[in-house]
Amino acid sequence: MAAFQFKQDSAGCVDTPGFAAAGVHCDVRGTADGRLDLALVISEEPCTLAAVFTRNRVAAAPVRLGRQTLAAATFVRGFAANSGNANACTGPEGMQDALKMRELAARAAGCRPEEILVCSTGRIGRRLPLDKMEKGFALAGEQIENSTEAGVRAADAILTSDTRRKVCSVRVETSPGFVHISGMAKGAGMIEPNMATMLGFICTDAKVEPPDLQAVLAESVDASFNAVTVDGDESTNDTVLLLANGTSGIPLAPGSGDWNAFKSALQAVCQDLAKKIVGDGEKITKVVELRIEGAATESDARKAARAVANSLLVKSSWYGCDPNWGRIMDALGYSGADLSEETVSLWYEDSHGEQRLPVYARGRILDEHLDGWKAIVAAPRFRIIADLGSGSAAYRMWSTDLTEGYVNFNKSE
Amino acid sequence: MAAFQFKQDSAGCVDTPGFAAAGVHCDVRGTADGRLDLALVISEEPCTLAAVFTRNRVAAAPVRLGRQTLAAATFVRGFAANSGNANACTGPEGMQDALKMRELAARAAGCRPEEILVCSTGRIGRRLPLDKMEKGFALAGEQIENSTEAGVRAADAILTSDTRRKVCSVRVETSPGFVHISGMAKGAGMIEPNMATMLGFICTDAKVEPPDLQAVLAESVDASFNAVTVDGDESTNDTVLLLANGTSGIPLAPGSGDWNAFKSALQAVCQDLAKKIVGDGEKITKVVELRIEGAATESDARKAARAVANSLLVKSSWYGCDPNWGRIMDALGYSGADLSEETVSLWYEDSHGEQRLPVYARGRILDEHLDGWKAIVAAPRFRIIADLGSGSAAYRMWSTDLTEGYVNFNKSE
Repeated sequence: MAAFQFKQDSAGCVDTPGFAAAGVHCDVRGTADGRLDLALVISEEPCTLAAVFTRNRVAAAPVRLGRQTLAAATFVRGFAANSGNANACTGPEGMQDALKMRELAARAAGCRPEEILVCSTGRIGRRLPLDKMEKGFALAGEQIENSTEAGVRAADAILTSDTRRKVCSVRVETSPGFVHISGMAKGAGMIEPNMATMLGFICTDAKVEPPDLQAVLAESVDASFNAVTVDGDESTNDTVLLLANGTSGIPLAPGSGDWNAFKSALQAVCQDLAKKIVGDGEKITKVVELRIEGAATESDARKAARAVANSLLVKSSWYGCDPNWGRIMDALGYSGADLSEETVSLWYEDSHGEQRLPVYARGRILDEHLDGWKAIVAAPRFRIIADLGSGSAAYRMWSTDLTEGYVNFNKSE
Repeated sequence: MAAFQFKQDSAGCVDTPGFAAAGVHCDVRGTADGRLDLALVISEEPCTLAAVFTRNRVAAAPVRLGRQTLAAATFVRGFAANSGNANACTGPEGMQDALKMRELAARAAGCRPEEILVCSTGRIGRRLPLDKMEKGFALAGEQIENSTEAGVRAADAILTSDTRRKVCSVRVETSPGFVHISGMAKGAGMIEPNMATMLGFICTDAKVEPPDLQAVLAESVDASFNAVTVDGDESTNDTVLLLANGTSGIPLAPGSGDWNAFKSALQAVCQDLAKKIVGDGEKITKVVELRIEGAATESDARKAARAVANSLLVKSSWYGCDPNWGRIMDALGYSGADLSEETVSLWYEDSHGEQRLPVYARGRILDEHLDGWKAIVAAPRFRIIADLGSGSAAYRMWSTDLTEGYVNFNKSE
């Protein structure tokens, strides 16, 4: 029996007891289109915090501020996020603006600025419209509540070129009782902003010490948000936050069955949100799971997965439903992973795992299965398994095809 | 005064005295389209050899055989190359086929197999049609000669999805007299083959010892063939050969002005061929020169150039004539090079170097020049200069835009 259950019709952060949310329109984009563009999520009780930020060296002001908060904070109360403006490449003024945004959010939440994290996503190189955001935060402060509608509005407010809301909620069974994990994300779309910012916000009512929370988040992000790619670009603003408010009264720490259940559930939430992100990639038609096995090291497995996942030739062939395994071999070959054409084996597999067809086995091409390969890669979801034949390390990633629509969509901002 | 001169209407390899060529049709593709698909280039005199091969770990059989030849040979007589079939991922039979191809070429040339290099480009995962190639080599042996027509036919026979022949010839002035460097290449197209194989064949009548020849070729390739990218994929078959037959009677070695002239000329030939390759990239509309300056190390400069050159978002924006500098900053940021948004400066420059407009200066956006940026990036050729502000190392690369046509062209083989 699974130790956790997904909730139907998730409302995002508010599905975790003790968290309230608001999503408002304050015209960050300056297009007066009425879109929700400012989210505020606040816990009644102080929370422990974990966070994973972009490794991009050109980090937006809110990311740099968030790193300071993570380093300094024992407890936080919540976060605010806007869409429509990334507050990136905005110089020293950008940091002043992020600090001001934090102040406005804290005023709306009735807490200290140091207890708030701020995130921004959208166009880079422009100052935040703080006058408008001041009004937006005042409104959010009035509207904030623990309700389905409020949770959904917050989840909508962080979207940019996403076509769908991304929320997920689970209930985890532990020996003292249930704890909750729920959250929202925005995806790897990038038309309105200049880049593919990925944001994830996860709330739990478990009681977890900061170092444990950070470790479990880092591990979950690695197997989820870090394992999806639409175009290989890592943005200036990528952020995943995890806030634990302890409202359940259930303390969890490594070394117990309850912790393992919590860890599995958190990873499931992160993977669900990450798959929603990749499935909503810009103008894609396919999501392909890449399983690398038999790698000499985990680093090799990652390199191999990433090379295939980001190859323009491979991604173009997926779009064309073409079982072009030669391009996969080529990408594996230049990935830097330890392998040769005489060690690698490849399979195509349908998304249900019902049919797995061999493609290439250590120098031997099995093209008697060509028609079967074609049937598998014609589907909108399928799997490629590559055994590098060099060891026992493995890694799994999800990627998308590359379409003419993507290029057209991104040729101008 | 330049110590070397480009020849108008190059005929490729045959412009170097002592080299004869042939280009024939033997239906390697099996489509009976009459296309030239087999080239043979032979020197009257034995040649010293230098070669640079793909670093892809999935290396085609002819590449692996070529490495053996390079390691063992003191002198070679020439090379044979076919288009239409890459002889890659073909297992042990592939190596047998490469050896057989070498035998056929040697028979046509009247020399020993060990004195011949073979190269293949085209579809991977299929056996070479050696019966047809045997007839092709017999014909090539009859037709081989030092003539413009033969040189041009050889240059055409190595093309795959290239739309233009790629040849280059120079005459180098040294104190004892003239030496010649000439060659041919095929490019980064990939529709018919499964990948973007790049081949370069360069002949000279200078007399150069193997270690010096290898060193000067490696350096030239690094600043030319290795500095161009259409889609970032490094193929299983990439090969650049340099054969020096000494027919001029002029010995050249490092440490003299004549050597420096030779070295400059070789680099110019390699860059000319490399630019012809990138300019003929599949369905491209723009060639963009990237100059990275102020990097902490040369490795950093390369990483930064490569990240920008291969970013789908950056390349899509070039296609749209959009001066989307934020995407460049993003790519620089995730390149791994030492930099931050407060150290980087960016410029757009027209291809003649007549107008250089600042874009971003260490945190400050200079968008008063927006109209000027737009005019520059609307041209089919322009330059981006990025000063990382972290040191004094530099690197230069050439890349292309990413177009809907590329995706459509590559969605199936």
